[in-house]
Amino acid sequence: MDINEYRKQAKKAVDEIADYYESIPSRPVLADVSPGYLRPLLPDAAPLQGEPMDSIAADIQSKIMPGITHWAHPGFMAFFPCTASHPANIAEMWSNAFNGAHFNWICSPAVTELETIVMDWLAKALALPECYLSGGPTHGGGVLHGSASEAILTVMVAARDKYLAKVTAHLPDGEDKEEQLWRHRSRLVALGSAGAHSSTKKAAQVLGVRFDTVPVDEESAYAMTGEALKSKLAQLRAKGLEPFYLTATLGTTDVCAVDDFASIAATLAADRPKANGTTTNGTTTNGTTTNGTAATNGDAAVAAPGEVWVHVDAAFAGSALVLEEYQHLTASFAHFHSFNFNPHKWLLTTFDCSAVWVRSRADLITALSIKPAYLRNEFSDSDLVTDYRDWQIPLGRRFRSLKLWFVLRSYGVEGLRAHVRRGIELGQSLDAKLAARPDLFTLFTRARFALVSFRVVGATEDERNARTERLYETLNASGRVYLTSTVVNGTFAIRVSTSTAAVQEEHVQATFDLIAKEAEALLAKA
Amino acid sequence: MDINEYRKQAKKAVDEIADYYESIPSRPVLADVSPGYLRPLLPDAAPLQGEPMDSIAADIQSKIMPGITHWAHPGFMAFFPCTASHPANIAEMWSNAFNGAHFNWICSPAVTELETIVMDWLAKALALPECYLSGGPTHGGGVLHGSASEAILTVMVAARDKYLAKVTAHLPDGEDKEEQLWRHRSRLVALGSAGAHSSTKKAAQVLGVRFDTVPVDEESAYAMTGEALKSKLAQLRAKGLEPFYLTATLGTTDVCAVDDFASIAATLAADRPKANGTTTNGTTTNGTTTNGTAATNGDAAVAAPGEVWVHVDAAFAGSALVLEEYQHLTASFAHFHSFNFNPHKWLLTTFDCSAVWVRSRADLITALSIKPAYLRNEFSDSDLVTDYRDWQIPLGRRFRSLKLWFVLRSYGVEGLRAHVRRGIELGQSLDAKLAARPDLFTLFTRARFALVSFRVVGATEDERNARTERLYETLNASGRVYLTSTVVNGTFAIRVSTSTAAVQEEHVQATFDLIAKEAEALLAKA
Repeated sequence: MDINEYRKQAKKAVDEIADYYESIPSRPVLADVSPGYLRPLLPDAAPLQGEPMDSIAADIQSKIMPGITHWAHPGFMAFFPCTASHPANIAEMWSNAFNGAHFNWICSPAVTELETIVMDWLAKALALPECYLSGGPTHGGGVLHGSASEAILTVMVAARDKYLAKVTAHLPDGEDKEEQLWRHRSRLVALGSAGAHSSTKKAAQVLGVRFDTVPVDEESAYAMTGEALKSKLAQLRAKGLEPFYLTATLGTTDVCAVDDFASIAATLAADRPKANGTTTNGTTTNGTTTNGTAATNGDAAVAAPGEVWVHVDAAFAGSALVLEEYQHLTASFAHFHSFNFNPHKWLLTTFDCSAVWVRSRADLITALSIKPAYLRNEFSDSDLVTDYRDWQIPLGRRFRSLKLWFVLRSYGVEGLRAHVRRGIELGQSLDAKLAARPDLFTLFTRARFALVSFRVVGATEDERNARTERLYETLNASGRVYLTSTVVNGTFAIRVSTSTAAVQEEHVQATFDLIAKEAEALLAKA
Repeated sequence: MDINEYRKQAKKAVDEIADYYESIPSRPVLADVSPGYLRPLLPDAAPLQGEPMDSIAADIQSKIMPGITHWAHPGFMAFFPCTASHPANIAEMWSNAFNGAHFNWICSPAVTELETIVMDWLAKALALPECYLSGGPTHGGGVLHGSASEAILTVMVAARDKYLAKVTAHLPDGEDKEEQLWRHRSRLVALGSAGAHSSTKKAAQVLGVRFDTVPVDEESAYAMTGEALKSKLAQLRAKGLEPFYLTATLGTTDVCAVDDFASIAATLAADRPKANGTTTNGTTTNGTTTNGTAATNGDAAVAAPGEVWVHVDAAFAGSALVLEEYQHLTASFAHFHSFNFNPHKWLLTTFDCSAVWVRSRADLITALSIKPAYLRNEFSDSDLVTDYRDWQIPLGRRFRSLKLWFVLRSYGVEGLRAHVRRGIELGQSLDAKLAARPDLFTLFTRARFALVSFRVVGATEDERNARTERLYETLNASGRVYLTSTVVNGTFAIRVSTSTAAVQEEHVQATFDLIAKEAEALLAKA
């Protein structure tokens, strides 16, 4: 395809894509195909000779489109949203034009430098503590990954290596130290609340360390508390195990719970092992603090040997921190070690774009840097530039900051606030509608960050579970909405997520009307 | 931005991008900016109010462009190439239009199904053994990752968990088994040749296992041999260590060496521990074979407990397997466990796109699957569909197969062969030109897969190293070419990679003329 054909075909694609966007509301939200639908439609090997772009593009409509679930559909209220935007998509065109592996500064200086700048912009827009800025007092900074799972894996590696280095720092190098290191490794435990996203468990699987959960309950609105963490730490240590990492969550996947950051910070400040880090034998370490002020002395606390690294996963709800009324939540983060959220979820940035910040970039780099000769150049060696490959698993990197830059500039912080606030208000609107029909529904968790979860009424827990599951299946079979369900401590609930960019009050009303109609039909049959 | 403004702005971007492509040959290949160039050009926070797209687009030209190194420039002969293409870029526009997290089948069935089909197409185009096909006898299959680093990390996790399960399979569950598991973990060693890409070392760092290298030498053209592997295995076992994983390379990063797959397969077949896997104590396991036919009995060998998982990393040179003359190299892969190459390097598929195949998908899924309630749906539970999230680290996934599908169809296998063959022939052309000037140059490694490495002549090794490094710096300062260097066993050499899509014979000639002119000047001064 020569450059003129590219101009023609790419513009044709722009129009077809715009037509597609305009058609979305009139399509069924969920793909209506059966598993294996595509294979019979395609040849069983690549063609030997090239085909014209027109026939490839035609297959998008005839073969791919039927297998697409439309995440931008106003009836898409499942999972959490993925909100793309036109400015982000145009930025992606440029990112692809500047195609390269961009694994160090000289590979394209703009790729590295824009990322550092935009991550500082974003940290400020979210009111993250200064320690997460690239120029902050603790030499922190931000980096873009593809997913929160990668973010959590990398910070868990950093946490592990930092922990092991600290607890064996008093030993001279040699066989004994090696042996002690393996003793510690064999006892490591990564923690998350019972509502933490599965990526924490997966990262622990990858590292080959234990994973355990801190229980949550209805009383604390499914948030992890410092008290529950404290007793989990004591239980683990009583078994000779060594908790080294914790995922705290701002907006859990199931019900958007917000962990109690302040009490978690206080618990960890009070809990930290004695400064000599003598947890090398199998005995229990008790929760004795080194001095009475530890609980309020966050900076000293996190520097203690054997500390628990706290990562805040705000993958979805982190976007709400653009709103001033939520920014008080970030106060405790100065006592923690890392934070991530996904602009590709709620912040109009085309997938994939996961923003991660660490308080001390040295912790990440120490854990992840390897530097063979063919990656050296005068700029990297001089420490004048950031080599983001040392902040992540992959070597190569896409130019992801470009779309974030386009989004931040095109909407402005006020535009993003308006977008996020609308999702939250729509959640409250649905909450009110559900609450107004106690004959049909109970709210399982009230509207929080554009997520509501509810159940169908019933005489027993079993009946409520069964009815709610039946309603859930009926609604998704309608083709008009796509919702997901959750099971929390044995309770089945339907989740409705109102933060997809296309959702307006009329769609929330239509969705509620559908839910109410089907619930009435279900109860009439009962 | 409404849909009409999107049509207008996206088409404007198409034209600006096409103009950019046309301008590339007249630009300096390397960005000519100093570290920190961008920060003074941008505000220190995101704007509160949105800005018009025209002013954002203008900043691409004025602020971003100067910081871009042009990977599509005909003078870009550094690293390995990243070859994008117009069809791949158009596919990316559609991929972004179908924006979503696509972590399971129902999220968009086409995303999962096209990937399985296209990976089968690609495996056939590369003549991979049947065991890597999704419908093959060992239930293998392919998946797209973002980078070879992720591919290697995931297969190393699978290798580790498979190894540990095998060597402790004879023990009943309980504390003793746990203890033995940790004993084994503490002795694990991941291996690569000295020329293997740094991603193997990095994956070992992430897993917290030892990494060791199998030496290579000039005599074997820097390829790992079965003999060298055998003695490394013996050394490690003599120390009580347990090698469990090996990266073999098709086209090493420094000099494009091809490891001796046949002798590696034979060594591992002969070497495998006894079938009862009794390596649970600290004593050395010798290399005794279980029977005299083991070396030729590949399938039985890989099923033995305590086996070494072999992953073939062909990140760059794997693309050459589209050519029939290289397909004999894949014969030994039936004895190995996994294979990856990056279509984003040499196969015209816009970054990122790394293709990975495993011989047994159950090995990957066992290691990487976690399944909380909110990810369950009737299709996933029925085993009718592939959930690729269990084949990788991230949960969410981009629709990457679309660009590969566009490329395979738009070029056809013959078109891809012509593209790859041209790069190889240009490497041979440069090789001949360098060889014709023995007064200036010695070839360090001859043209292999479009990579040549050479040195400047000199009386001593030190003089050759110093002159070659000086020439290297002069060439990159010219702005006309961008080359990288390598240091192999203490020898400094300049690498020239002739596989960038834009490179033609005229550019190779011009590059050679520049190299020769600068070398003459250097020697005249000496």
